[in-house]
Amino acid sequence: MTRTAGRAATTSSYSITMRLHTAPDHGVVGAVATAISEVGGIVTGIDVAESSHERLVVDVTCSAADAEHAERLQEAAAAVPGVTVHKTSDRVFLLHIGGKIEVSSKVPLRNRDDLSMAYTPGVGRVSLALAEHPEDVRRLTVKGNSVAVVTDGSAVLGLGNIGPGAALPVMEGKAALFKRFADIDAWPICLDSQDTDEIVRAVQLIAPGFGGINLEDIAAPRCFEIERRLRETLDIPVFHDDQHGTAIVVLAALTNALRVVGKDLGSIRAVVSGAGAAGSAIVTLMLAAGVEDVVVYDRFGCLSRHDETLPPAQRELAGRTNPRDVRGDLRAALDGADVFIGVSAPGVLDASWIPDMAQDPVVFALANPDPEVDPAEAAKHAAVVASGRSDYPNQINNVLAFPGVFRGLLDARATDVTVEMMLRAAEAIAGVVTDDQLNPSFIIPSVFHPDVPTAVATAIREG
Amino acid sequence: MTRTAGRAATTSSYSITMRLHTAPDHGVVGAVATAISEVGGIVTGIDVAESSHERLVVDVTCSAADAEHAERLQEAAAAVPGVTVHKTSDRVFLLHIGGKIEVSSKVPLRNRDDLSMAYTPGVGRVSLALAEHPEDVRRLTVKGNSVAVVTDGSAVLGLGNIGPGAALPVMEGKAALFKRFADIDAWPICLDSQDTDEIVRAVQLIAPGFGGINLEDIAAPRCFEIERRLRETLDIPVFHDDQHGTAIVVLAALTNALRVVGKDLGSIRAVVSGAGAAGSAIVTLMLAAGVEDVVVYDRFGCLSRHDETLPPAQRELAGRTNPRDVRGDLRAALDGADVFIGVSAPGVLDASWIPDMAQDPVVFALANPDPEVDPAEAAKHAAVVASGRSDYPNQINNVLAFPGVFRGLLDARATDVTVEMMLRAAEAIAGVVTDDQLNPSFIIPSVFHPDVPTAVATAIREG
Repeated sequence: MTRTAGRAATTSSYSITMRLHTAPDHGVVGAVATAISEVGGIVTGIDVAESSHERLVVDVTCSAADAEHAERLQEAAAAVPGVTVHKTSDRVFLLHIGGKIEVSSKVPLRNRDDLSMAYTPGVGRVSLALAEHPEDVRRLTVKGNSVAVVTDGSAVLGLGNIGPGAALPVMEGKAALFKRFADIDAWPICLDSQDTDEIVRAVQLIAPGFGGINLEDIAAPRCFEIERRLRETLDIPVFHDDQHGTAIVVLAALTNALRVVGKDLGSIRAVVSGAGAAGSAIVTLMLAAGVEDVVVYDRFGCLSRHDETLPPAQRELAGRTNPRDVRGDLRAALDGADVFIGVSAPGVLDASWIPDMAQDPVVFALANPDPEVDPAEAAKHAAVVASGRSDYPNQINNVLAFPGVFRGLLDARATDVTVEMMLRAAEAIAGVVTDDQLNPSFIIPSVFHPDVPTAVATAIREG
Repeated sequence: MTRTAGRAATTSSYSITMRLHTAPDHGVVGAVATAISEVGGIVTGIDVAESSHERLVVDVTCSAADAEHAERLQEAAAAVPGVTVHKTSDRVFLLHIGGKIEVSSKVPLRNRDDLSMAYTPGVGRVSLALAEHPEDVRRLTVKGNSVAVVTDGSAVLGLGNIGPGAALPVMEGKAALFKRFADIDAWPICLDSQDTDEIVRAVQLIAPGFGGINLEDIAAPRCFEIERRLRETLDIPVFHDDQHGTAIVVLAALTNALRVVGKDLGSIRAVVSGAGAAGSAIVTLMLAAGVEDVVVYDRFGCLSRHDETLPPAQRELAGRTNPRDVRGDLRAALDGADVFIGVSAPGVLDASWIPDMAQDPVVFALANPDPEVDPAEAAKHAAVVASGRSDYPNQINNVLAFPGVFRGLLDARATDVTVEMMLRAAEAIAGVVTDDQLNPSFIIPSVFHPDVPTAVATAIREG
């Protein structure tokens, strides 16, 4: 993407702490802060670690826009007279040392009595009872509150096929979010295979210990078959978050964007760029919600039911979309469209095409980290703009959906997750934004809005 | 087993809380406590939940010997004039509601900045770094501190083949102990298959996210092949606790028992009853420690290298044992033996045979919950007696070994666990008991002895 201004936004995800040795003059510290600011860094903390007649040792923490920018901040600090950069730590890597999650015991284990209740011989009675009454397993074990976050590492974030070990920090982060937002005990399962049959079988084999399966970052089209086969065979819900979590939040945002511009789901023309995991799930949920006119583009062009060269997944999608039999490129399809939703690749939408859309166009540019169109450019022409980025308004973030979805599924001891549940979840997220609050820059609640997980869980549970 | 005295020992593993409604007379509470004591219950807590002019509501917690005894305690309380038993709760089941373990986040997730470091986009940089440097996965993820507790539910405690769901409380308890005693993050993996190939493949597939594999309660002889194949293929240590954990603690106890009676490992005659998972591992470790004369019995009799009808695992064991080519029944083999170790079935050893053993005989009767010989009866004839029970001296408990073993393996980033490590671990446990402390009733430290896990971990690590 082209960044809007000369200066990129800084982010804590590129945050460094520099240990500086300086002359024993506190004025130098101010000069360092100024120097960092002048090259676009944000100083978020200054800690004097040591102060003597000979020198000061100061830890300066600051946010940069990216790795190269972080280096420029170090150069700026080092250029201040009397300053040496002794050591630089990357805060994100520091945070990851030793992992981000841990297992804790919920029961005391102070003495022999405690042991005899939580472990042998007491636990034997519980196991015997469960052998006779398997329906009690969810009530008397962690299964009732646990979710496996399963990946094969084949489509991790925007990074692609980096494998199960490198995917682990992402899955751990997800597990941490499950706990933070919905008090769910999630554990990462990173599989050492990218074979569909093996992934399916591995998940079936580990299923007895979990109350739900969250599939994560598994590449399309493999993810579709894996999810279908697991749903057919398991008695616990299976939810591919990249598909359905995204679809729920997009539908919530779309619902509120249409509230802003005064249009109905049933009467809009929508164009979706991207026919992968997210794109196909978004389209499926939009259709279920009542949208009738959706045209889908993949990297080769418009999906049409008359195109017999399409692979199976795209062909199936083509059969359910494009009712007006649109042909041609993305720009042509946008002519008169009310809504553009991109889950594809950076820069595929030229902002100059937006004025050709219908009145009050809605543009969701969700490719991460670089969207289909620069959100600020899009906002010059569109009535409502959303993206996946936290540094623009209206961030579409799966964290709004998956914690509450699984909270509701676990509480209901659900064996499956249905389209109706997902529609209700989207409606619940949209409903958290009141009429008073709703405006073009606020169509979706913050992930920290305390009502979101409960609203979603209730919607899932109370069908 | 035959219990020694008329009154069985009470245990917290049969602990109940009765809610009593009584007349508003605190003297009644004393009468209840007396009544419970008179039928052999132990009152461990009395809480007045409500006190008014009309009535008292009192929660009385007490330990019973078994389920039938717990019922007798209730009857005794109900028989006190003015008392109604309103409700009785089983404390062990109460403790298990909702499970015994949970997943916690080790990193703060208070705001957008925290999210951007622990999850997207910051986590992406860590994942990219790990894709380039897989050797850093243990350092930057939970893999470095995590163990999978894997079972197929086929040989759970003494309960047999109860399946993966019913096994979950035991595996959860184990995970809780891992945390309590060695700060390890263990997660239960209960597999929905009892097929050797499927179990092996499932563990291989989930291995990328774990730093070690603790196999648990998998039936013999399947467990031998599963462990062997996993050790050959995985780059993380694989340890079947029922085999090697037991063997380490038995060898530690045997070492100290011989210290008590002044004999050497190399010169004793030993008889082992039981040729399953535990028995074969105990024999293997004893031989590695220098024992030369071991005779093994299974339920069909003495293992002999001349017996061509033996199944493969027993045949292999027979090839390494019974150097004097002993034949005949267990009683005959015990004639002149220094050590009996039972990991087999209740009552197979008659206490009256013990006087025929060599001077100062050592008897370990480890079948659970009912030993090969009543420990109190055995103690009338043997110099040292150990059992698996907590209500007699010298409890052989795997909790002494596995936490420290895995702590050492994880700290060393070990790829395998060797016989030498296990010998050192046994020696370390034995060494925690000083010469001053050592006596026939104290050959093995308490599981709560604070030095044990560290001593074992150090022994494993520093080969």
